[in-house]
Amino acid sequence: MRWLIIAEPWTGAPLAVSLGDPAGVGPETVAKAWQHRAEGLPPFFAVGDARAIEAVWSGPVARIHTPDEAAAVFHKALPLFSVETGGDILPGSPTLDGARCSLDSLEVATGLTRSGAAAALVTGPVAKGQLYAVGFAHPGQTEFVAERCGIAADNVVMMLAGPDLRVVPVTTHIPLAQVPASLSVDLIVAKARTTVRALRRDFGIAEPRLAFAGLNPHAGENGAIGQEELEFVIPAVELLRSEGIDVVGPLAADTMFHARARAGYDAALCLYHDQALIPLKTLYFDDGVNMTLGLPIVRTSPDHGTAFSIAGCNKAHPGATIAAIRLAASAVRHRQAELAAA
Amino acid sequence: MRWLIIAEPWTGAPLAVSLGDPAGVGPETVAKAWQHRAEGLPPFFAVGDARAIEAVWSGPVARIHTPDEAAAVFHKALPLFSVETGGDILPGSPTLDGARCSLDSLEVATGLTRSGAAAALVTGPVAKGQLYAVGFAHPGQTEFVAERCGIAADNVVMMLAGPDLRVVPVTTHIPLAQVPASLSVDLIVAKARTTVRALRRDFGIAEPRLAFAGLNPHAGENGAIGQEELEFVIPAVELLRSEGIDVVGPLAADTMFHARARAGYDAALCLYHDQALIPLKTLYFDDGVNMTLGLPIVRTSPDHGTAFSIAGCNKAHPGATIAAIRLAASAVRHRQAELAAA
Repeated sequence: MRWLIIAEPWTGAPLAVSLGDPAGVGPETVAKAWQHRAEGLPPFFAVGDARAIEAVWSGPVARIHTPDEAAAVFHKALPLFSVETGGDILPGSPTLDGARCSLDSLEVATGLTRSGAAAALVTGPVAKGQLYAVGFAHPGQTEFVAERCGIAADNVVMMLAGPDLRVVPVTTHIPLAQVPASLSVDLIVAKARTTVRALRRDFGIAEPRLAFAGLNPHAGENGAIGQEELEFVIPAVELLRSEGIDVVGPLAADTMFHARARAGYDAALCLYHDQALIPLKTLYFDDGVNMTLGLPIVRTSPDHGTAFSIAGCNKAHPGATIAAIRLAASAVRHRQAELAAA
Repeated sequence: MRWLIIAEPWTGAPLAVSLGDPAGVGPETVAKAWQHRAEGLPPFFAVGDARAIEAVWSGPVARIHTPDEAAAVFHKALPLFSVETGGDILPGSPTLDGARCSLDSLEVATGLTRSGAAAALVTGPVAKGQLYAVGFAHPGQTEFVAERCGIAADNVVMMLAGPDLRVVPVTTHIPLAQVPASLSVDLIVAKARTTVRALRRDFGIAEPRLAFAGLNPHAGENGAIGQEELEFVIPAVELLRSEGIDVVGPLAADTMFHARARAGYDAALCLYHDQALIPLKTLYFDDGVNMTLGLPIVRTSPDHGTAFSIAGCNKAHPGATIAAIRLAASAVRHRQAELAAA
């Protein structure tokens, strides 16, 4: 499964792409993604401050006032739904005004997607430290979007996707020492069920195949190197199998991500952040996509940060943003097909 | 740094290659490696039961009685230093007799290397469970070899190497939950010093560059996600720097193994088994090499197990065995060059 190039005409609403922090690489990557629009990208519009784009890019920008204006101008200019910031914008130099702008852009883009005016939400990278300083009370954009969609943050799932690998970390941004005590059969089963539903609905995979990683070296060697596989993973796998889900594991985490192994499953369920992110970013550093599963809307994000150190240097790679737009579009099409078939 | 093909004539003793468990894939991979001998491999001889090879391979085998007979026959037959087992040998069906044979072969091959009759030791895969059943009292072959060399097992270092990545796990086969409490500045510094010495002596890198992984997601974000980076890794890095060692870190483990990042260091020091092994085996499943650092002898091993399920099916890939022989030969040459220059 390489990234699909979508050739059929786009029939839905345009996608909303928030620029993220105006001083980060978000504006540059979105503008560069638009330059690749002829490569099967659906119409999309940027949400943010036009000056953030103008500071790093000299291409055409067309202000729009409603999302439905985007499709008509998309072939000749990057459509922009304006969310203005107060202060100056200097690439590489984040400010609190910029953080407020990134939050406002996220809020607007989420609202437009929730309303159906945008077909999907793609979010650019934000600076969490700056966001917390302006009163942002969520751990990250994912939790904010979940709340705006009326979903408890615990009930959404983070998936990272590359061309031939999808990984789901069961726990995310917690110290490694807290991982073993954070695991439970309920948690693992809940993440797996949400993943299966999303693989069906957003990826069109009728019978998703899951693979579970073990926690310990060699997946614990039947209890010789740790008990968590016996206590949590095996019971979770057995419960999921009893529900008719195709699942293998726990597998030794070091031998489940090479090319032949990856062909054997549709998503790898991993027990902690780096177990999922190391293989994904080792293989797909430039085009990894973060997708939030379990939401009523489609939401993706390029899997990189603000990269302030290279902002404004014309060095940012748009691959992950392009992949995030493509994956969101693909999920929208799968949902449309499901509705049409119903 | 792709694997080097060594073109210059080999001037030293031949290498000793133990077959490992006679019912595993070791005999097949060693025989297949010999078939690649014209691709710059140094002369080597197998150590084990000839029947284990004959059961899976119809090529020429030449019994030798001392290692110095190997070079003369190497071009026309696989030299074999015989260590016979008692029972029958059936590929894929391990026995206690076979385990004893693998242990005897390891003992003989180690002794020949210690004595200088063999230039280096390459060990084939063994079945640990079977070895324990016949009274083997070491966790693995590495610890056995260390003891035979008069080195405490704690003072040797496991390195896994692929064509453009070398990783060193600071802790190895322990439950993940025990990793944080197992870390100390002393342990990290000791592993790093041994690694630096080996990169100089065995790899010919005059000024080795080390990169340390953090333990927690995003390397702990300055203590926001765990304290181990502040408590152990940063003090270790600072101590090593004060000794003149080129070292960076702690780095976020998920973003340090992609191709551009790998070019920035000669070895990655990782804090636990899967942090090191996931990137190595994701990239180099078929040709990863395990090398033991800190020994008076050169010792490498293909980084795979006995694979009983495919033994005798002519499916085993010799890439890792070939790479293990090449890497051992390269280390021998670097040591010879150092001696010649001294």
